[in-house]
Amino acid sequence: MWAELLPVGRSSASGGYRRYAWNEADADCRDWFRAQADARGLTYELDRNGNQWAWLGDPTAGDAVVTGSHLDSVPDGGAFDGPLGVVSSFAALDELRSRGKLPAKPLAIVNFGDEEGARFGLACVGSRLAAGQLSVEKAHELRDADGISLPQAMERAGYDPEAIGPDPERLARIGAFVELHVEQGRALADTPHAVGVASAIWPHGRWRFDFHGEANHAGTTRMEDRRDPMLAYAETVLAAREQAERSGARATFGKVAVEPNGVNAIPSLVRGWLDSRAADEATLAAVVAGIERAARVRGGCEGVEVRVTRESYTPVIEFEHGLRDRLAAILTTTEPVPLLPTGAGHDAGILSATVPTAMLYVRNPTGVSHSPAESAAEDDCTAGVTALADVLEGLACR
Amino acid sequence: MWAELLPVGRSSASGGYRRYAWNEADADCRDWFRAQADARGLTYELDRNGNQWAWLGDPTAGDAVVTGSHLDSVPDGGAFDGPLGVVSSFAALDELRSRGKLPAKPLAIVNFGDEEGARFGLACVGSRLAAGQLSVEKAHELRDADGISLPQAMERAGYDPEAIGPDPERLARIGAFVELHVEQGRALADTPHAVGVASAIWPHGRWRFDFHGEANHAGTTRMEDRRDPMLAYAETVLAAREQAERSGARATFGKVAVEPNGVNAIPSLVRGWLDSRAADEATLAAVVAGIERAARVRGGCEGVEVRVTRESYTPVIEFEHGLRDRLAAILTTTEPVPLLPTGAGHDAGILSATVPTAMLYVRNPTGVSHSPAESAAEDDCTAGVTALADVLEGLACR
Repeated sequence: MWAELLPVGRSSASGGYRRYAWNEADADCRDWFRAQADARGLTYELDRNGNQWAWLGDPTAGDAVVTGSHLDSVPDGGAFDGPLGVVSSFAALDELRSRGKLPAKPLAIVNFGDEEGARFGLACVGSRLAAGQLSVEKAHELRDADGISLPQAMERAGYDPEAIGPDPERLARIGAFVELHVEQGRALADTPHAVGVASAIWPHGRWRFDFHGEANHAGTTRMEDRRDPMLAYAETVLAAREQAERSGARATFGKVAVEPNGVNAIPSLVRGWLDSRAADEATLAAVVAGIERAARVRGGCEGVEVRVTRESYTPVIEFEHGLRDRLAAILTTTEPVPLLPTGAGHDAGILSATVPTAMLYVRNPTGVSHSPAESAAEDDCTAGVTALADVLEGLACR
Repeated sequence: MWAELLPVGRSSASGGYRRYAWNEADADCRDWFRAQADARGLTYELDRNGNQWAWLGDPTAGDAVVTGSHLDSVPDGGAFDGPLGVVSSFAALDELRSRGKLPAKPLAIVNFGDEEGARFGLACVGSRLAAGQLSVEKAHELRDADGISLPQAMERAGYDPEAIGPDPERLARIGAFVELHVEQGRALADTPHAVGVASAIWPHGRWRFDFHGEANHAGTTRMEDRRDPMLAYAETVLAAREQAERSGARATFGKVAVEPNGVNAIPSLVRGWLDSRAADEATLAAVVAGIERAARVRGGCEGVEVRVTRESYTPVIEFEHGLRDRLAAILTTTEPVPLLPTGAGHDAGILSATVPTAMLYVRNPTGVSHSPAESAAEDDCTAGVTALADVLEGLACR
């Protein structure tokens, strides 16, 4: 099953995956999903937002146990982020059947569309639309780098863009949603555990730092006469690392724009984007305040004006404690299963506002994510399938 | 005369000048030059490389004294860089005549084409071509941002691009070339002197610093697991400032490129360009070595590979000592006239390889250059004209 999916949408140049919403590789992944559902005699559904469902039992009965993830990728992404959750869902269902366990509740496997947002710039479009967290108007305005709109892309792929919108009836059928995902970090790597349970998604935001200086000649302007915004930016980058390390948080400057960006010109403007996340909102606020302070102090020294704009902010998402504790109880044998927070967003985070939701993480030895170097050991993947089967059995078969 | 030239090619939006090689504003500046020559009864010549000449006396007699500068600008440049030298040349000639001084040698005023290289990316194209420091083949390959080649641009402006090339006969007529220029720095600003004499053009180079790290998820990758090239870049920017300050040199990171340049991605590559200049080549080498060392130390700490490539290098240009000392002697009254090095390139620097060459600088109160804020006090401009007239009288009338 895994071997069939591996070559789909893989670039021979980079070794990374290019499965973007509604492109050809995405269509191939969708065909694969449907074939897996058919092969198991599951009831296949495509919902109004392009999410695929495979049902065992009556989809309309309610209190369903749903598992799954997504099949699309970031640009040149790895093989595991998303697909591991979908493949493990089918494998866990096979495992349940081989155990001779028949679910008492309806059970479904889902492939959410456009989780990564690689093409249209917004993550979790399929689950956001279903949960009413993205309006139809906003969705219609999304465009890719070539100017193709989301509706145009859906139409070209043979889907009806007019159908998209909130899907409360469908979500109301779900009693519990469990997403299995490769860990995007190394918290499990240093433990004997192949599998962990998600505790929360960290609060997270993006801040734009604008450093306004004075353009001048790089050859003739004395160092003491400069108002060089690059220096204040550089100091801020180093402060971000220091603040994050001190607080066990994350702070990253991964995107920069410079004006005029000439080799022989002191910049008039350096614009840097801070991505920061922390275990709780107070820590996140303190980290960002510390970075901003460093920017203003060095900006003051250099005669550089600093403006900070918060561009986005997502508060902490705590997964439902009841479901989380049931998963932990099911998976705990001799040692308690690790409870892990994460800095990444997921469809499970979107659904958690509407539906009792939980996540399982499978150990990632390098911690690398969103890259072809992303990996998980075969034994750990098998342990993930077993854990997911245990969870489905515990939730649906009793 | 100055008032006539001021509005030409000035952007009403930025207040800066957009006089680029062979554009409309450049043509207007050329018409202005020709009109000034005609109004004074000077012999007008346009050479094969698009440089304009206005002669008093026989152009072919030899041992001519030539002064002038350029009329083109950097993008959104100031009013003084270039035009002050050309306007002052005509004004100095008027001053000579009002003193009743008739030159014993031929005297010419020159407007070199495309000094700033704003359009085609290479500075001093007019003087380089004449001096044989730019081959015709290379010149024909130059293209602007719209893909228009230098020959196409010349043709559209009504000039013959097939004519360009070395012009040794013309340069051989010149006994001395003196360029007056607004100072691009504040060395005179803190002295009682309105005018200084150039000693040398600093050695100068460009180095590309490539910091190779590992792309990863900005939200999930622990700070201690990262190989973030932005940190090594930031440390290097701060080291450049420190090294330059310590050595009285210049070091600037004004241009950056980041991959993948995403807000939520640790970069795989940060590329920064260093522009550095110093009074002598040993100091320049030490400054760059110090910056490179800092890059490698922090790169080592962060697991980031650092590659440094020298993209261009110009050794020190010493202006001819005999001519420089004659200028200093002519201009020294009670106090010796200041001798100033500069970090900027000029047509005078190009010609100095072929012709005895000198430069005069007029005080710039802010030191700002290549910006609409560039300025010189009216009294200082007048002092510049008087000094240039004194020099022309000293060189040509005795």
